Amino acid sequence: DYPQKNAEIISGQYGVNLLLVGVSLMFSLSHRGSSVKEEHLLSFLITLMVLQLMWMLWYVIRKDSQNSPVLEKDVQAGTSWLRGGLTLLALISLIMDAFRIGHFVGYKACLSAAVGVYPVIHAVHTISQVHFLWFHIKDVIKTSETFERFGVIHAVFTNLLLWCNGVMSEAEHFLNEHKRRLSSLGYVNGTLDKDDDPQCNCTTNACSTFSNTLYYLFPFNIEYHIFVSVMLFVMWKNIGRTIDYQRNHKGVIRTTDLVIGPILGLIAFASTIAVLVIYIMHIEDSVETRELAIAMFYWYGIVMLIFMCAAGSIGLLIFRSDNLPLDYSKNPSRKLDTDLLFGSSIGSWLISWCSIIAVISAESFPKYRWTNFTYSLLVILEKYIQNLFIIESLYRKQSVSEKDQTETRAEVLSVTGSSNLSLAPPYNGIINRAFEDQDKVCASLENDQEGNRQVYSYPRRLPEVSISAPKRRSAKLNKRRKALKNIAVFLFLCNISLWILPAFGCRPQYDNGLEEETFGVTTWTTILNFAMPMSLFYRMHSVASLFEVLRKV
Amino acid sequence: DYPQKNAEIISGQYGVNLLLVGVSLMFSLSHRGSSVKEEHLLSFLITLMVLQLMWMLWYVIRKDSQNSPVLEKDVQAGTSWLRGGLTLLALISLIMDAFRIGHFVGYKACLSAAVGVYPVIHAVHTISQVHFLWFHIKDVIKTSETFERFGVIHAVFTNLLLWCNGVMSEAEHFLNEHKRRLSSLGYVNGTLDKDDDPQCNCTTNACSTFSNTLYYLFPFNIEYHIFVSVMLFVMWKNIGRTIDYQRNHKGVIRTTDLVIGPILGLIAFASTIAVLVIYIMHIEDSVETRELAIAMFYWYGIVMLIFMCAAGSIGLLIFRSDNLPLDYSKNPSRKLDTDLLFGSSIGSWLISWCSIIAVISAESFPKYRWTNFTYSLLVILEKYIQNLFIIESLYRKQSVSEKDQTETRAEVLSVTGSSNLSLAPPYNGIINRAFEDQDKVCASLENDQEGNRQVYSYPRRLPEVSISAPKRRSAKLNKRRKALKNIAVFLFLCNISLWILPAFGCRPQYDNGLEEETFGVTTWTTILNFAMPMSLFYRMHSVASLFEVLRKV
Repeated sequence: DYPQKNAEIISGQYGVNLLLVGVSLMFSLSHRGSSVKEEHLLSFLITLMVLQLMWMLWYVIRKDSQNSPVLEKDVQAGTSWLRGGLTLLALISLIMDAFRIGHFVGYKACLSAAVGVYPVIHAVHTISQVHFLWFHIKDVIKTSETFERFGVIHAVFTNLLLWCNGVMSEAEHFLNEHKRRLSSLGYVNGTLDKDDDPQCNCTTNACSTFSNTLYYLFPFNIEYHIFVSVMLFVMWKNIGRTIDYQRNHKGVIRTTDLVIGPILGLIAFASTIAVLVIYIMHIEDSVETRELAIAMFYWYGIVMLIFMCAAGSIGLLIFRSDNLPLDYSKNPSRKLDTDLLFGSSIGSWLISWCSIIAVISAESFPKYRWTNFTYSLLVILEKYIQNLFIIESLYRKQSVSEKDQTETRAEVLSVTGSSNLSLAPPYNGIINRAFEDQDKVCASLENDQEGNRQVYSYPRRLPEVSISAPKRRSAKLNKRRKALKNIAVFLFLCNISLWILPAFGCRPQYDNGLEEETFGVTTWTTILNFAMPMSLFYRMHSVASLFEVLRKV
Repeated sequence: DYPQKNAEIISGQYGVNLLLVGVSLMFSLSHRGSSVKEEHLLSFLITLMVLQLMWMLWYVIRKDSQNSPVLEKDVQAGTSWLRGGLTLLALISLIMDAFRIGHFVGYKACLSAAVGVYPVIHAVHTISQVHFLWFHIKDVIKTSETFERFGVIHAVFTNLLLWCNGVMSEAEHFLNEHKRRLSSLGYVNGTLDKDDDPQCNCTTNACSTFSNTLYYLFPFNIEYHIFVSVMLFVMWKNIGRTIDYQRNHKGVIRTTDLVIGPILGLIAFASTIAVLVIYIMHIEDSVETRELAIAMFYWYGIVMLIFMCAAGSIGLLIFRSDNLPLDYSKNPSRKLDTDLLFGSSIGSWLISWCSIIAVISAESFPKYRWTNFTYSLLVILEKYIQNLFIIESLYRKQSVSEKDQTETRAEVLSVTGSSNLSLAPPYNGIINRAFEDQDKVCASLENDQEGNRQVYSYPRRLPEVSISAPKRRSAKLNKRRKALKNIAVFLFLCNISLWILPAFGCRPQYDNGLEEETFGVTTWTTILNFAMPMSLFYRMHSVASLFEVLRKV
């Protein structure tokens, strides 16, 4: 049997190569003269999905036959609200599959069979996968690891490929829309590519309804696949791991605390919908109205982002004012969340820096030139602050006084009691059972020595916190928590708003023309096609993370 | 002061944004109509280098004035042979700067001042940086961390940008060469872009010598910057870390063991040079000769890669036959090496998968069609196996019997002796000082339980190993080590060979035409421009890693 590290590398390399085959197929598909056709890509995707289905079936049957009730679970992976959200996205994906089948039935005379088989398999795949995620995502696999590792990584990369496929279809649709608009405005003369549309007549009445509605459902399908692949990746990282049981603090969200945050957030949300509608309506009008619509978007964005920066900064100041130590215990899903947040910001940072350079060097003077500049700077700043806020929230230990409110004081002070042996917060274990339970000490000490130092210094501060002036301090903390909760809710709603805009077609980066002047149409379209999906994923991912923050503070 | 995690994120985000500004400038530079000119990019790079120089000066002065001799050092970072290699690359970079200055002097009438200042600053930067790396790369920074973190990450990303700049200039030069060849063959009619050349006459005699030689020095300069940024990144990861001292096993490379590996490797190397010369000479000839040259390259590649696959597989089989536990102790430079090896393989995997799809779907039938297919498959397989081999070598613990050869047997068995308290290999500590020296236990137990299990099961095997049949087993191990050393040397020389070919212009992916047919010229050039530098870096990085392996086995 392979050592852990090697098994990881073997399966990881397999997964990456799977993705690269798919990506290469997509590249060749995007070239008109190529003999690679859509059905080849679809057949490849169908094969991958069928393989995943078989593996999931094998896994579930084997787990059931084993009947071992003491299976290890990673409580931090796939929280129930995340699974709930995924189920919703999966439902929309299923509706989309139904529409696709309808579309195929209408045009079946001139479409390849793969186009019809794909949505059927995709629907079966979606249903089975949601079932799998509900009941097995927390599993920590320990036996016959190498084969299961391959299965999980196969699932991760299959979903990632389905995501790429969705992103590509959407980008193509969007580019065609954009060209259609430009030609209706008289900018482009020439024929439009109509290769996407089937070459025969529809035999049912609903064909155009199907294909038009499809593009409103696409963004949800895309988010579904990327989230599934992130969750499965955490499962893969958990294979062979030994979990140290920690209490999972279930934050109760008391709605009475939440006033300002939700109100401001809902105002932002409502104005977003208004901006979206106005933008979509006016972008196809005359040049004058078009410029106004773009300028409006930037002004709206500036106001939103200033508020978001302010909220994030206040949150960071609150964190700085009570300098609690961070929690460095091992937690793959949190580490992945952090890395993804950081990594996916790169997409929109790149867009923003390109915009800034374009504004500075541009030779034309549209109305929105310097608002675009300010907007781009604020996008960079806002992501910078928001990342810091979310990451600090996720890594913070809970303060002792916060626990006082839900537990009796006696329990906190009786750290040697046997009643909280398995559920005690980490610092208990370190102080009292250092020599009795070595594994546990090591697990919570972890590899980070900085973390250690802080954990050890904790007990010295303990009396000060929980005895000297508990009442006043508790009130102060309560105020802080309220503020943090409101900030989290506000940012949550703002991020949903900023996801909706580009997801449903409000992309002034395509329409404003400044960047195309500096970078050329080809380069700029390539940059956008690469960075836009990352930027969309960033917003959705920060929505999920902010919900986690909201439950935690 | 910020907690560790936040300080990392703050400085990391700063660095990424620095890189993105530079990348955006390069994108706009590559568009002909843009008003961003080369001097803007150069001024930006000069500013970054000057900032880094100031920071390094501050750091060195402060360190000297502190006079604290008990500074913590990370012995695994920046080994002396790596620093030596870097110094060599830096020297070639300096020669290049001299040539650039000469080139500027010749054309100074029509070149911007930035073009002249850049090589001067770059030379100062190179000298100071090499000095810094020699004396400070192992430092583990503990004080006033946030500012120093920014300094180090600034240095990391400055070097990464200089690397990007080098890669971009080289790609541009290569594309121009390619177009020139095609037009000399009559494939392309039309004018060549001559924007690169200055618009005035050279005032000295050596101008063309300077600019021609420059492109042979470029590959070394590129490798220099990427290696420096990797080393500085390890320094950044080490900030605030507490090092657990371990013995650093200095492998002695006895040349008597090395026979087959070097011989085969040198044959590979010699044939590489021959292939390079023939390829470069014949690629500009008639279509017939051109096809022959490309076919020759693929045949040569297939033979090389089969041997490399075989060598790697034998190495892996040797590892499987004596199943030693892996060493999971914390070591940022090793983790980074692994990640980079894995990450940079993606570039050439992508190229290979694209080639495979192009071969399958192509409609033309050149001679080299199916050799290209086999070659690409072997490239994928070879990287797969080589990665596994290198990573397993880097993570393996040394076997006990190997230590027998350098230590007396008595010392191994007297693990409780106080003499080897600080230098004892990890398993001593675990068996005997579990309760006396907890920190150390934790450090070597680490977070990985798989590792634990194997470490704990170790003592049971100890008697068998060192008492039952030590002689025979030692002889067997010796044979194994010899084999591994030969494999490492062979792969080392092969990887150098495979770096030389693309670095000095032997890139059949541009010349064979199959992929362009399937992907279109624009897409394929973009893919190559992105993946080629990764692939080059992969080869150089695996050369460095294999040298490490050679010292270790």
